[in-house]
Amino acid sequence: MKEILSTKNTTIKEFKKLHKKKYREEKQQYIIEGFHLIEEAVRAGAKIEWILFNQRGQSEWSVWLDQQPDELLIYVSEEVLLSLSELPTPQGMVAIVNMPDDEKNIEFSGGWLLLDNVQDPGNVGTMIRTADAAGLAGVILGEGTSDIYSTKVLRAMQGSNYHLPVIRKPLADIIDSFKREQIPVFGTELNAEAVSYQKIGHNRDYALIMGNEGQGVAAEFLEKTDQNIYIPIKGTAESLNVAIAAGILMYHLEQ
Amino acid sequence: MKEILSTKNTTIKEFKKLHKKKYREEKQQYIIEGFHLIEEAVRAGAKIEWILFNQRGQSEWSVWLDQQPDELLIYVSEEVLLSLSELPTPQGMVAIVNMPDDEKNIEFSGGWLLLDNVQDPGNVGTMIRTADAAGLAGVILGEGTSDIYSTKVLRAMQGSNYHLPVIRKPLADIIDSFKREQIPVFGTELNAEAVSYQKIGHNRDYALIMGNEGQGVAAEFLEKTDQNIYIPIKGTAESLNVAIAAGILMYHLEQ
Repeated sequence: MKEILSTKNTTIKEFKKLHKKKYREEKQQYIIEGFHLIEEAVRAGAKIEWILFNQRGQSEWSVWLDQQPDELLIYVSEEVLLSLSELPTPQGMVAIVNMPDDEKNIEFSGGWLLLDNVQDPGNVGTMIRTADAAGLAGVILGEGTSDIYSTKVLRAMQGSNYHLPVIRKPLADIIDSFKREQIPVFGTELNAEAVSYQKIGHNRDYALIMGNEGQGVAAEFLEKTDQNIYIPIKGTAESLNVAIAAGILMYHLEQ
Repeated sequence: MKEILSTKNTTIKEFKKLHKKKYREEKQQYIIEGFHLIEEAVRAGAKIEWILFNQRGQSEWSVWLDQQPDELLIYVSEEVLLSLSELPTPQGMVAIVNMPDDEKNIEFSGGWLLLDNVQDPGNVGTMIRTADAAGLAGVILGEGTSDIYSTKVLRAMQGSNYHLPVIRKPLADIIDSFKREQIPVFGTELNAEAVSYQKIGHNRDYALIMGNEGQGVAAEFLEKTDQNIYIPIKGTAESLNVAIAAGILMYHLEQ
């Protein structure tokens, strides 16, 4: 088992850079924090590169740590652990994980959630978690949609990225593919020009497109869909939060 | 029209303290930021105490400002406006608003959302916004539930607190009141011991209790309800975010 006690260690400095998106993409690695998420990643077979823990992590999770391959483990000082954490109350463990191979083929069955330019990390993470809970087959991240390996998205996903495929692809291509497979594609609109979701029956296979927080789904995608749907607003709110809307629609379509 | 150019002005220092919960409760006032929210507050008849704006605010919203009572207006410097803002990109206007009188009577009809110890400001704000959109009659904030006058909750509510009553009350009393009125009270549980929400029909009058992010609804309240319900998890996620769950349930019950 390795041991690193100084925050000036070059390996630690490299790990720290993984809090920046550009560097994550270059290294194809990301950091996860907290025992719960790390345990979930290991259980789901994520490609763990390193598990770093301090004194506290060692005493709290000693049984679990004993079961992990010794060559993955690094004991670090409190100071090193704090330097790698972005949480308000850091826990005693972080892990460095390799990103999954994005080249896997998409299976065109079940429900798919397509995100067009969804920018808030909390919204993206929560929608992936809800897609997992509702039993969808996977999630496609279209152009402009937030990177999923930031601390905020990883926290909001609660490990759901290990439970279903989350794939970055240009949406125009993927919508065409769903249509070729004769799978209905639903766009979402913010106004009543579309059809109320309650008029749409339950579907075994479908694609549902959710859009940007302010602008909604881009017009070029709405033109390609089989049907555009909306959620009726009965009170005086102007709109629903996009993650709430996605939750209502996914549970309706999967029911 | 008043004019304040220095951040050292005692009035400005007093306003700034309204970002602290304790001080808001003492003064029974809060700060809202950005033209959109302020316009909504004025339209809804909120008790506005002051409207502060800088050069930019004045030029962008001059027509609207001309329609406001002159005794409410304070022209401030860029520096003063920045000192009062908690937004990452401050807009040119903030307002000081008096809290509504909480003593109003609750009308026991329609749907009511009851929040038990919901702690995340974003969750609380989003649930109030969703209750508004879904057409509920009002929201009760029970013990431990986040104060709604922080910048985070005000942003997430998007003005919905001006559209429906949001009242702080002890939940045990209010649950008893609903029961006396023979209105069904639904608790929410995180496990399948409760009944699936899909088995519950639509209701004209009801109370729905949502609970703490980690612990759910307190056992003492679950024991008092007419029926406890849950949302089936079909994938491998452990649970749904509480605001998402509330959205699915409110749209189901109101449908």
